[in-house]
Amino acid sequence: MAESWSFLDTLESNFRPLVVIELAKGTKEETIEWFTKRIVDKKANGGEYSMIFCAQLLVKPLAAENGYENIYLVGASHLRLLLGAEAVGLVKECNDNSMRTFTYSSRKTFKDFADDNHNFLTMAECQYIIKHELENLRAKDEKMIPGYPQAKLYPGKSIVRRLLTSGILVQIFPLHDREELKKLRHSWYGRVKVGYQPLDEIRCYFGETIALYFGFLEYFTFALVPMAVIGIPYYVFAWEDYDKYVMFATFNLLWSTVILEVWKRICAIVTYRWGTLLMKRQFEEPRPGFHGVLGINPVTGREEPVYSSIKRQIRIYLVSVPFVCLCLYFSLYVMMIYFDLEQWALDYHEENESNFSSLMLFVPSIIYAVVIEIMNRIYRYAAEFLTSWENHRLESSYQNHLILKVLVFNFLNCFASLFYIAFVLFDMKLLRQSLATLLITSQILNQFAESLLPYWLQKRHNKRMKKHTSSLKTDTDLSLVEQVNLEKEMGTYFGTFDDYLELFLQFGYVSLFSCVYPLAAVFAVLNNITEIYSDALKMCRVYKRPFAEPTANIGVWQLAFETMSVISVVTNCILIGMSPQVNALFPDSKTDLLLTVALVEHLLLAIKFIMAFVIPDKPRDIQIKLAKLEFESLEALKQQ
Amino acid sequence: MAESWSFLDTLESNFRPLVVIELAKGTKEETIEWFTKRIVDKKANGGEYSMIFCAQLLVKPLAAENGYENIYLVGASHLRLLLGAEAVGLVKECNDNSMRTFTYSSRKTFKDFADDNHNFLTMAECQYIIKHELENLRAKDEKMIPGYPQAKLYPGKSIVRRLLTSGILVQIFPLHDREELKKLRHSWYGRVKVGYQPLDEIRCYFGETIALYFGFLEYFTFALVPMAVIGIPYYVFAWEDYDKYVMFATFNLLWSTVILEVWKRICAIVTYRWGTLLMKRQFEEPRPGFHGVLGINPVTGREEPVYSSIKRQIRIYLVSVPFVCLCLYFSLYVMMIYFDLEQWALDYHEENESNFSSLMLFVPSIIYAVVIEIMNRIYRYAAEFLTSWENHRLESSYQNHLILKVLVFNFLNCFASLFYIAFVLFDMKLLRQSLATLLITSQILNQFAESLLPYWLQKRHNKRMKKHTSSLKTDTDLSLVEQVNLEKEMGTYFGTFDDYLELFLQFGYVSLFSCVYPLAAVFAVLNNITEIYSDALKMCRVYKRPFAEPTANIGVWQLAFETMSVISVVTNCILIGMSPQVNALFPDSKTDLLLTVALVEHLLLAIKFIMAFVIPDKPRDIQIKLAKLEFESLEALKQQ
Repeated sequence: MAESWSFLDTLESNFRPLVVIELAKGTKEETIEWFTKRIVDKKANGGEYSMIFCAQLLVKPLAAENGYENIYLVGASHLRLLLGAEAVGLVKECNDNSMRTFTYSSRKTFKDFADDNHNFLTMAECQYIIKHELENLRAKDEKMIPGYPQAKLYPGKSIVRRLLTSGILVQIFPLHDREELKKLRHSWYGRVKVGYQPLDEIRCYFGETIALYFGFLEYFTFALVPMAVIGIPYYVFAWEDYDKYVMFATFNLLWSTVILEVWKRICAIVTYRWGTLLMKRQFEEPRPGFHGVLGINPVTGREEPVYSSIKRQIRIYLVSVPFVCLCLYFSLYVMMIYFDLEQWALDYHEENESNFSSLMLFVPSIIYAVVIEIMNRIYRYAAEFLTSWENHRLESSYQNHLILKVLVFNFLNCFASLFYIAFVLFDMKLLRQSLATLLITSQILNQFAESLLPYWLQKRHNKRMKKHTSSLKTDTDLSLVEQVNLEKEMGTYFGTFDDYLELFLQFGYVSLFSCVYPLAAVFAVLNNITEIYSDALKMCRVYKRPFAEPTANIGVWQLAFETMSVISVVTNCILIGMSPQVNALFPDSKTDLLLTVALVEHLLLAIKFIMAFVIPDKPRDIQIKLAKLEFESLEALKQQ
Repeated sequence: MAESWSFLDTLESNFRPLVVIELAKGTKEETIEWFTKRIVDKKANGGEYSMIFCAQLLVKPLAAENGYENIYLVGASHLRLLLGAEAVGLVKECNDNSMRTFTYSSRKTFKDFADDNHNFLTMAECQYIIKHELENLRAKDEKMIPGYPQAKLYPGKSIVRRLLTSGILVQIFPLHDREELKKLRHSWYGRVKVGYQPLDEIRCYFGETIALYFGFLEYFTFALVPMAVIGIPYYVFAWEDYDKYVMFATFNLLWSTVILEVWKRICAIVTYRWGTLLMKRQFEEPRPGFHGVLGINPVTGREEPVYSSIKRQIRIYLVSVPFVCLCLYFSLYVMMIYFDLEQWALDYHEENESNFSSLMLFVPSIIYAVVIEIMNRIYRYAAEFLTSWENHRLESSYQNHLILKVLVFNFLNCFASLFYIAFVLFDMKLLRQSLATLLITSQILNQFAESLLPYWLQKRHNKRMKKHTSSLKTDTDLSLVEQVNLEKEMGTYFGTFDDYLELFLQFGYVSLFSCVYPLAAVFAVLNNITEIYSDALKMCRVYKRPFAEPTANIGVWQLAFETMSVISVVTNCILIGMSPQVNALFPDSKTDLLLTVALVEHLLLAIKFIMAFVIPDKPRDIQIKLAKLEFESLEALKQQ
């Protein structure tokens, strides 16, 4: 590698800005100088850490004019990006159609590689590489950030993370490519067409995590179609026969197992093509917010903040768990108030029967749906605060604890009233009505709060900005300065968490009580079709471009969906057992009925687990391809 | 490596026999010459397969005398063994107490390594290396085994496996080390002492798979002690209060989850110390019995037999599955006969009440227990035949299908009558009696058939052999020829399958109906204590020394035990729900009772799953050590 670095000496004439760094206004000169020097400086050879003290990227100030001196553009030479691709372990397709980890020395064997082909790496990949290099820029022997004595550094601390936490660095974000974005928008939602989303193009532009979310959303929508189709006649012909309900519920339960298993297979196919299935997990650095006294990390042997795991356990079990329980209790309390309101509305309707009073019947449900949404959002902040206070060292462990907290609360908050209606009040009519109100209200609220409102705000803001700068320009004609100025004010997309959560709750509405309200799947399908468009709009128009994140699966959400489908077996069996038609089958003995229901439930659960066990997680051809790669690497090791 | 091989030129003077090869009597001279040449020949450098055409081991005929010319001893130079240790990927302890994959070039960094220390590798490891080298000896361009035109070869085919399947090679087995064995016997079961088994010594002598079995047996016995201790007062004071039973059952269910989770942690600690936790999985070659038309393996690209996966699926689903179902039906049929017999014995006892007739009451159970054992053993052969006929390519897949078949049948065969008594006849007294008879009879039969009978046969045989050769020698004084002659006639130990199966069924007897018969755990503990000794006797005295097999866990048995503990939650909840004391609590409504039982069952299952999820599979210090190794290898990759 030694000689390769020297090529980088000549600054390429065609500097292509990829990433924007916004520093705080009034950042001291010496800090800026030190920081940009570290970004630009050549990587030296030798020594253990030498590679990580400098990034050898290209930096240009956006403009020396008034008001822009705090914004810098970062790019990199083609060669630097290729070496970076090797460092992050990108996997690319070879000439023989196999997927392999990219290395600079074997670059000629890769498909579409040519020394002058600057499109070998997608723009999203280039930006990911630059982000990786910036985040891995580490302090050498500085004790603090020059000019800011309170911003402490220690050897090996990520400079960018310290600049971020001390407020000197406002944000780092990748630039949109207006031309590409226009093309993507057109093929994604620009024209009215029936067909799949351009997942590969989405992946090239936004990276694997977001593309996989849209892939899952699309798959899930298609998977719901059979449920919706079977559900419609139940509504149209008002079927109330128990055997039809049993059939529908059984189909639903097995179907939900099948779709979750098949998704794993599809996911493997797609991520194999994208190369992320084979990507080695990088060593995880501490997350930015992690703090503690300086100590020696037992794994790396490096000096870094350490925080005792016992202290964290104490915080989790003595503060977080009680707090979550309290919130759950509060949520149940609110639910009881809702039932009082419901009763009050019913009484009112009975006393003075009018159009107004029959409309009033729906008011408590709608209010409750709105309150649930609000509570979910407030709790979300509390959960984020608490999880961050628990001081997890790794981002992944932080995410897992956060997701667990949010899932438990949202599950109870959204479904407790339905469980209460179904299994305490035994009121199937009210259940159907509440389910419909909750489902539809939450879908409308979500689409509005998530996409349409931000889109409208963004549009208004853009208009005002454009008036400021210059009039009557289309998006693609904007100068770089104007583009950066526009984009830096856009909102930040905080990842796919909320999107998956929405789908998860929707899956709950559809599957938990599916045999009472078969129409839920129809609403879910309709919602998801518009969801695809509004989410696409959100990604392309509302938010800053997010950094691409390689991923091989939907992670903990797979487990969450599977758990939901297990719970729905239980609820559906109980619902069917409670239906008057089934009760009529066992006129003499309620005991026999209960035993039968319990038996069927256990059988269904057993079938579910066996099915999940028998269906392989990866299709055969992917298995063979993976085995082939493993075999080759073992053979190569032997030859060494 | 090139230069290292030249060291091997000088045949070491102190040839230490490690492995015995027994050829069929009357094997042709040219075959023997060709085979031994391939074993002895130096490995050449260059070329892809050059390493695998010759093994570069040492071979010596046992004796040129009458009757022994078909037996050969295999050994290897110290250097050859070290290189072999690298090839199989052995993991050893370094000077800094970390565990690392052994390589010849880094040999100086390993603990206790010295060029003249021939005990760096244990004898079991040396034998494992030789076995690996012999099995990996591959055909080059031979079309057949010289002298045997019907024994076809193709490039890359394992020579030893072809020799075995065509009957030219009778067996390959490792030699006992009489001195070591004596020491091991002494510390294992030779003196009366209270304490743990010498697991590390067992591992050094018999390898990880067997040591792990004994480790599990010991752990399981200790884990049963609390259950046994709590169970005794139930028997002594004849407690029949429902709350005590509920307490006992609840304790049992949670305890069985805890012990299975804790075992994973202990297993990780032990196998980390042994190095197998870190050992990379080797690429799996086709199993010896696998056959098919020659084709190209899509994974390796090599020419080898291929067998269509669809054909195998057809054999599995159209022949094996129906056959297994038929056997299950037959087993149920036999069970019904048993109940007829039971009824007949009861009638007989009522008609002519006498001591004889009351003894007759136990006869059906005992006969049934014997029949079950016989059926299990016969079915085992059928299952082996069928699974072998399914023609699985990999040994692991063969094993999984065999274990699944055997487990399902044995489970039904052993427990069907108990389920019938408990949940159809509702006869708790008969259940307790049957459980006791089945448990005790099967334990006695097993210990007898597994260890004592073979031991007695072996002893008789040894005596006769000794009389033949020379009189009045102790074991350690035997000459090599006598030792080989004795050992080659000993039975072959076919792996830990039967031993684990026995424990699995015992676990079923203890946990499935634990709240009806708390004394089961006491019998299990007593049985396991003697089981340790009889199994140890079996390994040391009865069977040929088995080849060591590195392993990091107990594999599919962990899953089997966990499944059993889930099933036992269901059975125990039902049993408690059926008890008259609990029924008396709900005098008005059987429905409430059933609902309560179902609720408790689901709660217990949920707690089980959460516990299994929350308890980490590896202790924190092992996690840190593993993370450290991973970090180091990632760093090393970066430096490259």
